[in-house]
Amino acid sequence: MIKEETIDSAVKALFSDIRFPDEPAGLYDPLRYMIAIGGKKLRPRLCLTTYSLYKDSFGPEILEPAAGLEVFHSFTLIHDDIMDRSPLRRGVDTVWKKWSPDTAILSGDVMCIDSYSRVAKAPRECLDEALELFSRTAAQVCEGQQFDMEFESRETVPMDEYMNMIGLKTGVLIACAAEMGALIGGASAEERSSLYEYGYNLGLAFQVADDYLDVFGDEKVFGKPIGGDIANSKKSWLTVRAFEKAEGGAAADLKRAMAMSVETAGEREEKIAEVKALYQELGVGRDAQDAILRLNQKALEAALKVCDGDRFIVLRDFARRLIGRTY
Amino acid sequence: MIKEETIDSAVKALFSDIRFPDEPAGLYDPLRYMIAIGGKKLRPRLCLTTYSLYKDSFGPEILEPAAGLEVFHSFTLIHDDIMDRSPLRRGVDTVWKKWSPDTAILSGDVMCIDSYSRVAKAPRECLDEALELFSRTAAQVCEGQQFDMEFESRETVPMDEYMNMIGLKTGVLIACAAEMGALIGGASAEERSSLYEYGYNLGLAFQVADDYLDVFGDEKVFGKPIGGDIANSKKSWLTVRAFEKAEGGAAADLKRAMAMSVETAGEREEKIAEVKALYQELGVGRDAQDAILRLNQKALEAALKVCDGDRFIVLRDFARRLIGRTY
Repeated sequence: MIKEETIDSAVKALFSDIRFPDEPAGLYDPLRYMIAIGGKKLRPRLCLTTYSLYKDSFGPEILEPAAGLEVFHSFTLIHDDIMDRSPLRRGVDTVWKKWSPDTAILSGDVMCIDSYSRVAKAPRECLDEALELFSRTAAQVCEGQQFDMEFESRETVPMDEYMNMIGLKTGVLIACAAEMGALIGGASAEERSSLYEYGYNLGLAFQVADDYLDVFGDEKVFGKPIGGDIANSKKSWLTVRAFEKAEGGAAADLKRAMAMSVETAGEREEKIAEVKALYQELGVGRDAQDAILRLNQKALEAALKVCDGDRFIVLRDFARRLIGRTY
Repeated sequence: MIKEETIDSAVKALFSDIRFPDEPAGLYDPLRYMIAIGGKKLRPRLCLTTYSLYKDSFGPEILEPAAGLEVFHSFTLIHDDIMDRSPLRRGVDTVWKKWSPDTAILSGDVMCIDSYSRVAKAPRECLDEALELFSRTAAQVCEGQQFDMEFESRETVPMDEYMNMIGLKTGVLIACAAEMGALIGGASAEERSSLYEYGYNLGLAFQVADDYLDVFGDEKVFGKPIGGDIANSKKSWLTVRAFEKAEGGAAADLKRAMAMSVETAGEREEKIAEVKALYQELGVGRDAQDAILRLNQKALEAALKVCDGDRFIVLRDFARRLIGRTY
């Protein structure tokens, strides 16, 4: 096993030392920018964590694939931000906004390719399995984004479809990170599949928590303005659950509130307040907390199939740090 | 060795049998569309051809990577067409035009990922080398597109920079196809590198021929309206060479002609006629034919390092079919 502090400093070193080609700068500068503006590096951290259950030290055969998962995630953010017309990410300009949509397309492409170069550094004896896991996951992430975009033009979405969408868009890459670490660490097929399940449920919990915090979070901790999903009429776990619970008048109120325009700051505030009040009336914030707890529980049950004692504590603590802020 | 007819029918079967997931249709339909609208399938054909120098039959370990090269090429076309605002490809709507730019971005992404899934079917014993070759090539193709876009805002481009750009944008993927077939066929490192050189020079010749045919070709054979590069003020081998040769007045004439607007069909015709006349005065059409011959010669010299007799004839004929129409 490898200590948490060692994992922390390995993740830090991984991204402060990460190198992309210098030229053409117009192509590669956005890659450096995306890595520099940070984020939690959740996926490489999880990958190194599950690897640490099996091994005692890190080498390039795990560090490079772990970095590849983050590079891939950043690539999807660059392209999602074009499609979602998001001007800001982590408080700074998105790539398409800072450079141009064309640059964002092409730099995203080369970032996707770069992620494969890194995953391809997995050890020879499990390279085909690592690539199969990664490619299957990568395609699913695109499928998730497709469903997410298709949801925009639908008035309501059933909960099972919503969960399937966030499973594809967020769950599978976190699951892949957990399984990748185990695979390269030498885990059995059974252990790998349980760790995938751990990661998948953790990913779902993480996304529901994100949806929850977007409405009920603390702006300083959350890192972006509260109410963004509501202002943009974006479907979230809370909307989906609210329409599931709302009857008659409440459903009509919710539809009307979600359709309010947000041309001015005042209108924006009003819309957020109104939808939030309806959420509170329907109790969907509490429901989200319950859902997060249940998903966390499922993740931990999957983890228990693989390990106990100190090794289980590692996985429990990882989950706690990730979603502990919401329940 | 494998006969040409067998290669032909293998290529045909490869793309009539190719499968992408059914759902979400909004994501995967554009992939089926791109493959269906055809093209010469030059890259898989070359990959199977160099493989055929070493082996006597095809299996999935070569067919899948060969298909992956075409899928990757199609992915770059989908994204290039967004960046170049091209409404037509092979006489039909481009993906962004038929669906939307967002769809073209995301379907392109999943097509890139699909290409990796196929290349990853290379045999275990050379999988890491196949992936390294493919990822290096894929990044270079993006670099080529970046340089191509940067050239748009420059008045003139030196010939060495132009050749480097088409080398990246077109040469390396054809070179990669030639080397990939050899690699999976079991060729030595030296043979692989010579076949790479064969493919690279063939790719350059192919691009110069494309630039030549865009002005001096027969519309029915070329498959798209003649003069497109001129009408769009796009830098081509002919423009670059013309500016290299033009002195004083001729250079000024060329700049003026290239800057002519093409709002109406009449203006378009006039601009094409004017630039074409200047090209003829400067003799750049003849220069292009010479350049194509020289590059073809270099390709064949590289091929001769690897083989002679019947096997050389295969490579010579491949080159002849590809660029024979221009000289």
